[in-house]
Amino acid sequence: MSELRQDVTTREWVIIAPERNKRPQREHKKTSIEELPAWDASCPFCVGNESKTPPEIFRIPDPNNPSAWVVRVIPNQFPALTPTAVTSQNGERQFFRSMVGFGVHEVIIESPSHNTPIALMPQQQVERILATYRLRYNALKQDRKLKFITIFKNHGRASGTSLTHPHSQIVATPVLTPYYHRRFDIAHDYFVNENRCLYCDIITEELEKSERVIINDKDFVVFHPYASRDAYETWIMPKRHYSSFGLLPEELLPGLAAILKTTLLGLYRELDNPAFNLIVDTTSTVDEEDPYYHWHIRVIPRTALIAGFEMGSGIYINAALPEDTASQMRQIIKSCV
Amino acid sequence: MSELRQDVTTREWVIIAPERNKRPQREHKKTSIEELPAWDASCPFCVGNESKTPPEIFRIPDPNNPSAWVVRVIPNQFPALTPTAVTSQNGERQFFRSMVGFGVHEVIIESPSHNTPIALMPQQQVERILATYRLRYNALKQDRKLKFITIFKNHGRASGTSLTHPHSQIVATPVLTPYYHRRFDIAHDYFVNENRCLYCDIITEELEKSERVIINDKDFVVFHPYASRDAYETWIMPKRHYSSFGLLPEELLPGLAAILKTTLLGLYRELDNPAFNLIVDTTSTVDEEDPYYHWHIRVIPRTALIAGFEMGSGIYINAALPEDTASQMRQIIKSCV
Repeated sequence: MSELRQDVTTREWVIIAPERNKRPQREHKKTSIEELPAWDASCPFCVGNESKTPPEIFRIPDPNNPSAWVVRVIPNQFPALTPTAVTSQNGERQFFRSMVGFGVHEVIIESPSHNTPIALMPQQQVERILATYRLRYNALKQDRKLKFITIFKNHGRASGTSLTHPHSQIVATPVLTPYYHRRFDIAHDYFVNENRCLYCDIITEELEKSERVIINDKDFVVFHPYASRDAYETWIMPKRHYSSFGLLPEELLPGLAAILKTTLLGLYRELDNPAFNLIVDTTSTVDEEDPYYHWHIRVIPRTALIAGFEMGSGIYINAALPEDTASQMRQIIKSCV
Repeated sequence: MSELRQDVTTREWVIIAPERNKRPQREHKKTSIEELPAWDASCPFCVGNESKTPPEIFRIPDPNNPSAWVVRVIPNQFPALTPTAVTSQNGERQFFRSMVGFGVHEVIIESPSHNTPIALMPQQQVERILATYRLRYNALKQDRKLKFITIFKNHGRASGTSLTHPHSQIVATPVLTPYYHRRFDIAHDYFVNENRCLYCDIITEELEKSERVIINDKDFVVFHPYASRDAYETWIMPKRHYSSFGLLPEELLPGLAAILKTTLLGLYRELDNPAFNLIVDTTSTVDEEDPYYHWHIRVIPRTALIAGFEMGSGIYINAALPEDTASQMRQIIKSCV
């Protein structure tokens, strides 16, 4: 028997249907880390190929070899948006409204190693990546025309990535979509009605139920949301309330790095290096000081494809119970440490 | 230079970025129709395997052989929702709201042939499929607890289908998602303000501009929408205004069958049998008589994967200009007939 669950942050409904797991499965090939070389001559993100990328924006030098780097930030060579354009609407009637593609699109090369995913990196390297996220976020938000900054990562073929070398991306846009407006509106309404943050209350409720909680430490909670759209969808929530990722204090970076590495290692072991997307979910740059939102990280393994029903109805079908997957994750993480 | 375009039906923004086509591409394997047999002993939808499916709901008999069928409707063997459940909310506080998975999930087997997609079927067979869509839609809407009926089709591996044999699906749900609420709200606001249907006006505007129009006949217009989320996204719009697909008069079925076949044949030739989703976009069953919505068919080829940016920002990146793809489609369709 399936179940319809409502996501309190979006008010969308999700069908949780474990029966669907019995459907005939097409085998799908995973990227095997073991098959990848540590260095690839044809990879523009590998050491020695720095000249194949656009000019560097930022780097963290290797402490043992100052002429080498351990993290690099470059503009995307095939940007979805470009910073030189001026924001202006075309003045057309509502049917054909457009603006030039103003915005920023950067790539964060996460490590010199071609074949080391975050799950298998030393914690210190994960901390450098997160510090770079924070640094670039706070640099880009200085331009007040950039209203929304999305930091994300596509890992593995099914995630939509076109390059294997571990990397993240940052896109800053002059527009905020109705999708986010609605999420912010829901969080804002809750704050006005309850005088508390919706996401702080989700943390309290999830810790009380505990069945979907995977990690609960001093500063962060990791859990599988009640109305997960996708199997093994994982949220990493900071317990201290900050609307914006940009406001995350530096002293929380080591703890976040440890939690992120453990979470991704758990998924790596449990699902055999799955393709996944990672998203830093945050408020808009203009509402950074407003108290109603609560930044967090979402990790979404791509074990199923979105099909016509999801596209046509807006309702997602998840073939796994979040309580079951959270229990699996607790076990695998216990065996990893 | 990319462009941001706003979809007038959802108010979502889309980035149109043809430059992105220059990114390194991973080759992707298409299903080759030629490689498939016309009959597959292991396929539950093939002739002779009728006992492998749940009991039949409806069939169109073969006019030349009344004991055989040309279209069959069966319950989905792995349903996302089940009709026996009673709709009831769990009474939990807002954080953990759920209801049992009440609903209907049916499969329409489009033809006895294992390897003939709609693009290559005789027009008469396409008409039978559409007549079956209409018949089942109108049968299911009799249950007033079923508020929303989604008819859709997944074709090809990348579309999310688990079975090759050409089939469509119908899912009827007791809930309507905020995603659709918003679309209906936008159409409703427009109707209240302008005293005209938003979608009728889109047809007028698109015909006036003409650059995105692919087919324009007496009863239907086929075009690539101005703010297409995906390359070659195609809309088939009836010129006569009906909110609900269920109200489509029978006499329009032959014309719709011809247009649908031509559209899918154009995509089949242009993109070499792409994976695609087809969605019958319609108003809710409870608002069927309200005038503000306008049913239509959306065909979405799956040439790109949704990645972290789309998930994180709600903004889609389309690497093709709809004006260019519409022009390509006009040419290929001219060469098909």
